[in-house]
Amino acid sequence: MIEVQNFEELDQLGESKIKGKIVFFNRPMEPKHVKTFNAYGGAVNQRGSGASKAAKYGALASVTRSMSLKNDEHPHTGAMRYEEGVNKIPAAAISTKDADLLSAAIKKGNAKMFIQFNCETLPDVLSYNVIGEIKGTEFPDEIISVGGHLDSWDLGEGAHDDGAGCVQSIEVLRIFKNLNYKPKRTIRAVMFMNEENGLRGGLKYAEEAKRLNEKHLAAIETDAGGFTPRGFGFTASAEQLAKIQQWLPLLKPYGTDFLQAGGGGADIGPLNKTFGTPIAGLMPDSQRYFDIHHARSDVFENVNKRELNLGAVNMAALIYLVDKYGL
Amino acid sequence: MIEVQNFEELDQLGESKIKGKIVFFNRPMEPKHVKTFNAYGGAVNQRGSGASKAAKYGALASVTRSMSLKNDEHPHTGAMRYEEGVNKIPAAAISTKDADLLSAAIKKGNAKMFIQFNCETLPDVLSYNVIGEIKGTEFPDEIISVGGHLDSWDLGEGAHDDGAGCVQSIEVLRIFKNLNYKPKRTIRAVMFMNEENGLRGGLKYAEEAKRLNEKHLAAIETDAGGFTPRGFGFTASAEQLAKIQQWLPLLKPYGTDFLQAGGGGADIGPLNKTFGTPIAGLMPDSQRYFDIHHARSDVFENVNKRELNLGAVNMAALIYLVDKYGL
Repeated sequence: MIEVQNFEELDQLGESKIKGKIVFFNRPMEPKHVKTFNAYGGAVNQRGSGASKAAKYGALASVTRSMSLKNDEHPHTGAMRYEEGVNKIPAAAISTKDADLLSAAIKKGNAKMFIQFNCETLPDVLSYNVIGEIKGTEFPDEIISVGGHLDSWDLGEGAHDDGAGCVQSIEVLRIFKNLNYKPKRTIRAVMFMNEENGLRGGLKYAEEAKRLNEKHLAAIETDAGGFTPRGFGFTASAEQLAKIQQWLPLLKPYGTDFLQAGGGGADIGPLNKTFGTPIAGLMPDSQRYFDIHHARSDVFENVNKRELNLGAVNMAALIYLVDKYGL
Repeated sequence: MIEVQNFEELDQLGESKIKGKIVFFNRPMEPKHVKTFNAYGGAVNQRGSGASKAAKYGALASVTRSMSLKNDEHPHTGAMRYEEGVNKIPAAAISTKDADLLSAAIKKGNAKMFIQFNCETLPDVLSYNVIGEIKGTEFPDEIISVGGHLDSWDLGEGAHDDGAGCVQSIEVLRIFKNLNYKPKRTIRAVMFMNEENGLRGGLKYAEEAKRLNEKHLAAIETDAGGFTPRGFGFTASAEQLAKIQQWLPLLKPYGTDFLQAGGGGADIGPLNKTFGTPIAGLMPDSQRYFDIHHARSDVFENVNKRELNLGAVNMAALIYLVDKYGL
């Protein structure tokens, strides 16, 4: 086995040192980032393309330190890709605790690893986005979508990623119904299928919107866990963002502290790309997200009901304003 | 047994209905409050003085719905007082789940309750505040205190309340040492004794400060749990607060979103009262605090390391600024 921290090290070692070995990518997520998504962004290329890079130098397999800021025993899975023409060597992730043990063993020399995979990729099957809506009273053709994704990695329950987003989106509709509030525009809760592994639901949603000539006023995604909401990030025009930012005092009482440029969501990205629809992403507190992300610890017991509810409340408040004042 | 929601109901029932009965105070914390301390403030008088009020009407005992926003099986304890001259009837708290069951049983009629207490109040013993400090290089006589309290209710570990505050206060000193930063003023980490049950440590600290003619520039308390920090609340002059609020952009990168009027801490209150010392309280996210507050669920496993660390980081940053620029 051979341990590397990054692709530069891998390139320096080259085929002579790597051929016939298992490559262990062990660069931790940088804990100094207050925003944990930045720490994730700085480490995830090891999981995403480490195997492919190592294969080019003749590696037998790749093992990656899990994308987590917690020191525990849960491996974290996630998307990875092989470059075209590359030998598709096996790729595994191990827990942060095991990564530290493995690294110590490698430093002692002669570490060997036995890897057995039980996973398999089954053929694609037909599946669906799941959509519910409240028809608008004045502008029923103008659609505001709020969504999360229905699929999850199968080693946990996907309670935060993205069960939380799904129930929060449904909850937005329930809040309006419960208040007996009739929106002017059509509000749609969309549970997108297959976000994790190809974005097929999100792509199809935009494709269908185009085919049906729908008018999408705005879309909001919640896919960062059911934690206490802190704010929203927007991909929108400067004018739209300026209009939205005027609403900050109206959202503050519910816990929204910022309405900032930059953000959206994977599933609603295609809407923005196709129509220029302004999109927003709910940005909850991110401190615990990578503790459970794509791991077996992403279970119902780790979701706090109040934190989850507050996310829905803040989205409902934002959607109420978009519905009332337009964009 | 007789169930009431508030003291007005109790007064209306009067001695004829209450005498010889167990009174059950069952007003829930109001979940609609986004700031959970407001929900606590709106319900805690049942625990604090319910028994004393019920005793005046001849009640045998008082039972209170736990001060919690979570539906679970943990009773939550806390301070309560008897008015002078009142018959000291037993007072118990039951879990929110049990409160719902008990309420249903009372509504069916003829609910009876058997109460057995194993708790006792032992004689006072001599105890101590625990203090560590870094001596200031320029103004060693000017003291900035940062503290939490060392005591806790004994049915859990007091991990959040206030183990978190204690280790965060020590961590502030460790951060400065680790960075090899020598503050101009003396920075003191203070673990106050007996906050929960009389504030004896906080009172003694101010008393000793007066006796020794110490100069206290500022004091910060962290006693709201080791959750992600959101901001600080201050009891200070308008000029001091204005000066502090100019620092917001310097604190934002660490997660502090507001520096607002109003706040401090129980243990540092006497310093403010004695000297007019400006005081501040760390205000973390409060959504989960009353899930664990004064309950057996307030244990180490429910503290998140990153959230805990961030609280200390934000306090260290604020103290650095107070030390550097004065107040």
